[in-house]
Amino acid sequence: MYINYFKNRLELPFVSLIVQKYGGTSVAGPDRIANVANRVVKDWRDGNKMVVVLSAMSGETDRLINLAKELADEPDPRELDVLLATGEQVTVSLFSMFLRGQGVPAASLLSHQACIYTDRSYGRARIIGIDTARIREELKKNRVVTVAGFQGVDEGGNITTLGRGGSDTTAVAIAAALKADLCEIFTDVDGVYTTDPRICPKARRLDRISYDEMLEMASLGAKVLEIRSVGFAKRYDVPLRVRSTFTTHPGTLVTAEDEEMEAIPVSGVAFSKLDARVTITRVPDRPGIAVRLFKPVAEANIVVDMIIQNTSIDGLTDLTFTVPKGDLHKTLALVKPVTQEIGAQQVLSDENIAKVSIIGVGMRNNAGIASRMFEALSASGINILMISTSEIKISCVIEDKYGELAVRVLHDAFDLENPPPKKK
Amino acid sequence: MYINYFKNRLELPFVSLIVQKYGGTSVAGPDRIANVANRVVKDWRDGNKMVVVLSAMSGETDRLINLAKELADEPDPRELDVLLATGEQVTVSLFSMFLRGQGVPAASLLSHQACIYTDRSYGRARIIGIDTARIREELKKNRVVTVAGFQGVDEGGNITTLGRGGSDTTAVAIAAALKADLCEIFTDVDGVYTTDPRICPKARRLDRISYDEMLEMASLGAKVLEIRSVGFAKRYDVPLRVRSTFTTHPGTLVTAEDEEMEAIPVSGVAFSKLDARVTITRVPDRPGIAVRLFKPVAEANIVVDMIIQNTSIDGLTDLTFTVPKGDLHKTLALVKPVTQEIGAQQVLSDENIAKVSIIGVGMRNNAGIASRMFEALSASGINILMISTSEIKISCVIEDKYGELAVRVLHDAFDLENPPPKKK
Repeated sequence: MYINYFKNRLELPFVSLIVQKYGGTSVAGPDRIANVANRVVKDWRDGNKMVVVLSAMSGETDRLINLAKELADEPDPRELDVLLATGEQVTVSLFSMFLRGQGVPAASLLSHQACIYTDRSYGRARIIGIDTARIREELKKNRVVTVAGFQGVDEGGNITTLGRGGSDTTAVAIAAALKADLCEIFTDVDGVYTTDPRICPKARRLDRISYDEMLEMASLGAKVLEIRSVGFAKRYDVPLRVRSTFTTHPGTLVTAEDEEMEAIPVSGVAFSKLDARVTITRVPDRPGIAVRLFKPVAEANIVVDMIIQNTSIDGLTDLTFTVPKGDLHKTLALVKPVTQEIGAQQVLSDENIAKVSIIGVGMRNNAGIASRMFEALSASGINILMISTSEIKISCVIEDKYGELAVRVLHDAFDLENPPPKKK
Repeated sequence: MYINYFKNRLELPFVSLIVQKYGGTSVAGPDRIANVANRVVKDWRDGNKMVVVLSAMSGETDRLINLAKELADEPDPRELDVLLATGEQVTVSLFSMFLRGQGVPAASLLSHQACIYTDRSYGRARIIGIDTARIREELKKNRVVTVAGFQGVDEGGNITTLGRGGSDTTAVAIAAALKADLCEIFTDVDGVYTTDPRICPKARRLDRISYDEMLEMASLGAKVLEIRSVGFAKRYDVPLRVRSTFTTHPGTLVTAEDEEMEAIPVSGVAFSKLDARVTITRVPDRPGIAVRLFKPVAEANIVVDMIIQNTSIDGLTDLTFTVPKGDLHKTLALVKPVTQEIGAQQVLSDENIAKVSIIGVGMRNNAGIASRMFEALSASGINILMISTSEIKISCVIEDKYGELAVRVLHDAFDLENPPPKKK
């Protein structure tokens, strides 16, 4: 299905415009850069217009951050971005000089040259627009255009960076701005899997997945794509392909959902051990209590994931929520005084939890998915501590020792090992 | 004398504007960057407006060139400049974040932000103009402005570099454009000496030297200042100070010549073993012969230094010239066929030569300097192979084994060990 999709594009009478992004491990040294460049040359010789977005060599960003920390405890954000931006500058220039050495016309563009405009939030800037005139000019000269990923320029001409994984966003944003036929994210895995193959050996690589499912997978801990890039791809309907730099397999296509996808109730199982649970017992069930508890937590930039409040009995309720393990200590310090003020009983916490989730756009039209999930977990003696649902996902918090087991159990329960039957 | 000059400037009612440049060894790592930054803070706290031009950490440019050579035998010049420019980008950002960490307002500017415009000659670009608006804007905010040395931007917005030593030129050009009160070049030596102290222990540091003398010293092998930066300083009358990053000594002031300087016949002795000598014997003395010999050499970008042609006898003459040792082989290959065509006798070459020169603006008004030089060399049994003179310099080519001896002999002959008597 996926392959047909791509072939159709290539069979169009006009030349395809492809944006490719290669991550840090794909350009980790001169040999790998040459390897990647040779892949690009092949696609270019096939008659495609090529824009290539590169990350810094793996390890380079950390090296630069360590240098910065030797000079300032909290490096100035503007200057840190100037420093970090050198990582991608090195790879795009090396890449382009390799291509030119092979007689392939190429030009590198930095963010201010490629006109990738962002807001002023150094270190986590958002792309607000791209003026593609210069990229188009280079493409007209039949050049392979290499663009430094991860970075942008604000209205004052200052360098900004987009945060970890930002090169994915650069690639998708450029693909959207150029109305590219395809955006390919090359990485060290060969696609999106039904679940983490290290936990579940039966995990199956998906040929296709919808934007929404990918968004849930990314937010639930699958690290294959930066979440903002998926949101961008969805908003601008950019066909996105996740594939490996080190194989020729076409990988997984992330695209708008269609009837075929909607027929599949569950596409994948996600898993995370990053959160801890906080429970406040016997909370008076009065308006304004939740605000008093969560406002200080939000103000400390702590991301609360799940929040569960039971129906109150005698005007008292138990309130449970999850926060990243690293923020647990801080959260307790913020919450405990409020607990006393509002007259709740006590604050309990638990770090030994895992979250296991099933994801699928077909869930919308499929009753009984949740109960199949609970049944499968129960049949394996796994107790559910918390439940949270969205339109296309169900998450359960369980004891962490059962985490991996739960993944395998759910993978079997929804028969993810086998590809869904094709519709004709 | 020098110190008064500077003090006068500081005593002016308005704030002094100082441009400082720190070379690669001065910013070789985080500790040294912090050390340099502390020097700058001191000058800034004294009430000066500070613009700081930085080189890449020593070794970084070579590291990047080696990376490039792994990807291309002859790296594309445009892409090589993109790569090399990262070296200074790293130092300016680290430097500025250190200052900000100390509570000192600072901002780094890259060449396109500081608007340092150059021609398109990648790798050896010339500065054609600087729009100082952004620098002035930052100075008005009382910030220490850090500018990436060595690099510029062409009219197409491409990154260019100025070639080795280019950061000196960046600093002087910015000082000229800002009409700065002083441009200080911080390096690993503490000033300009009468000659190389490693050869002649009696060498004396000069308090002052004229632009023209410095130009001759630089072109004759003294590596303390990049020659283009001296030319720039002379053209725009920028007071230039050469001093050490590792001491507090005020170093040497390079400035316009005055009567006091003109009273000193010889200011320094320069020395170089970089050239080789080519002699073509029995050349027919006809018009156009020199063109036929030197045109192919020039076209191969080989720099011919001295050219000596003896008066012809019987319509035949000997022609001798010097080229860099590294270009000797290529030069001989170019010259030999021409020699046969024009009917000259043979081509001889000699790599065992040294060039020793005396320099001084006072030479202009002082007869007998040349003969004192020849006499001193002769008295030590040193044979002169070639002689070349300019208005303020006399160079002799000698056998290289006598090179160091010649330097010491001339240093003594012109009593350079002792400072010249002060005029009242």
